[in-house]
Amino acid sequence: MNISNKPDWLNKKVKGFLLDVNGVLYDSGLDGGTAIPGSVDAIDRLVELRIPFRLCSNETQHTRSSLLATLQKLGFNVNLHNILTPAPIVAEELKKRMLRPYLLVHPKLKDEFRNLDQSEPNCVVVGDAADSFTYDNLNQAFRLLINSTEPKLFSMGTGKFYKEANGLMLDLGAFTKALEYACDITAEIFGKPTEKYFLAALDSLNLKADEVVMIGDDIVSDVGGAQNCGIRAVQVKTGKWRNEWIEHPIVKPDAYMPNLFACVQCVLEYNNF
Amino acid sequence: MNISNKPDWLNKKVKGFLLDVNGVLYDSGLDGGTAIPGSVDAIDRLVELRIPFRLCSNETQHTRSSLLATLQKLGFNVNLHNILTPAPIVAEELKKRMLRPYLLVHPKLKDEFRNLDQSEPNCVVVGDAADSFTYDNLNQAFRLLINSTEPKLFSMGTGKFYKEANGLMLDLGAFTKALEYACDITAEIFGKPTEKYFLAALDSLNLKADEVVMIGDDIVSDVGGAQNCGIRAVQVKTGKWRNEWIEHPIVKPDAYMPNLFACVQCVLEYNNF
Repeated sequence: MNISNKPDWLNKKVKGFLLDVNGVLYDSGLDGGTAIPGSVDAIDRLVELRIPFRLCSNETQHTRSSLLATLQKLGFNVNLHNILTPAPIVAEELKKRMLRPYLLVHPKLKDEFRNLDQSEPNCVVVGDAADSFTYDNLNQAFRLLINSTEPKLFSMGTGKFYKEANGLMLDLGAFTKALEYACDITAEIFGKPTEKYFLAALDSLNLKADEVVMIGDDIVSDVGGAQNCGIRAVQVKTGKWRNEWIEHPIVKPDAYMPNLFACVQCVLEYNNF
Repeated sequence: MNISNKPDWLNKKVKGFLLDVNGVLYDSGLDGGTAIPGSVDAIDRLVELRIPFRLCSNETQHTRSSLLATLQKLGFNVNLHNILTPAPIVAEELKKRMLRPYLLVHPKLKDEFRNLDQSEPNCVVVGDAADSFTYDNLNQAFRLLINSTEPKLFSMGTGKFYKEANGLMLDLGAFTKALEYACDITAEIFGKPTEKYFLAALDSLNLKADEVVMIGDDIVSDVGGAQNCGIRAVQVKTGKWRNEWIEHPIVKPDAYMPNLFACVQCVLEYNNF
């Protein structure tokens, strides 16, 4: 490898990775999803070289344990401590503030909130509820908010859509917007792309912003969110990737890469791990 | 009646009315709904005195004919020519522009679009789909838009919510916002509160803006929309009325009235019909 070809964004050594999961490691779907070619190998290399990484997922269709099981079944060599999802963070926050949530979330996620009182709810938590985004459930959440003197809406992300094996799906951000609009309120966001989330991720790696690279398929939530915290960020062309993002009006990724494997390989080649 | 008590907003003679329907004439519900006390009498007085009026409804759960049948069943002395709803206007517009709609609307409304080609749809029309706002239907609309080079989203109003006999319900505006957010687009709005709609209503009465009074329960869509066109507008405290609107940050109604009957009575008393 000719070192003179080293891209500028790799001039500073990379000591750890933040990796989006859905659309980067695998494409989710009814059948448990499919690993994106090369991604299992990419994780193997990181583990082999003892390069620390965190799986930064706004995944709110599964508990962390269930996401772990899904990934392990697909062949990924990962552990629970690698996974950072918003639900446990929100649950902790609600406990601290002594709030009782109405959960507009996927049935599979409810277990993350099992230690909270959910009687006479006084706030709404939105996750990627998928088929549980029924008109009836949305109305229940809406009525709770519109009838509160201090309505509290928590959303575990701002995602617009994601890709499943059978097509693009509306994400929780769209439904959060619907409730915000109907009630004239602003949701409190957890997870990507908030600064709070990325700082927590760096903290758990015990690394500084400029020592880490984020790899994601969502140009706003993954790439833009990380860059806002001073983290280098690579856009991969898997998952929800769209060609028009090559000239995104707001976010300029540090690099575009075909997929996770290519990105990890590139960093490792220039990084002298 | 002491004429010196005449409110300022009635100094100019009222020659016709624009009346919102849901929440002003009746509260809708699964059972066909219930007439709001006094509203049947109020319409009777207008008919008796031959004072022209239009029922300005963003109702998109029913065809005009079906809405007429509902109102007549509740005892309202109204005819088809009294009713102005957005669906026939949108259908006309789509025909003119040779567009083929995907209808995210209530099953009962579909008949309004029966003359349009709906094969291989190339635009989305949003109405108050109610229980048809399923995750699946929303995803179908979303995919059509996100995969269009020139996405076209038409919404038959901007309503945030409305009141049914069994509670407040999310209105089409919330779901339009969800699609706008997910696709980074702006919908083309038909119906209230657009200027186009109110001008069409005045036109059908053959009256000028300052000769007409709008009566509605939605402070933004009914009252604000009419006032933006120079039409006097009264906020009634029925339907979706909320006490905090007494000090609404944007819209100042020409008057607040307890209900349609009180408003019509007041106008007639000072107007020397």
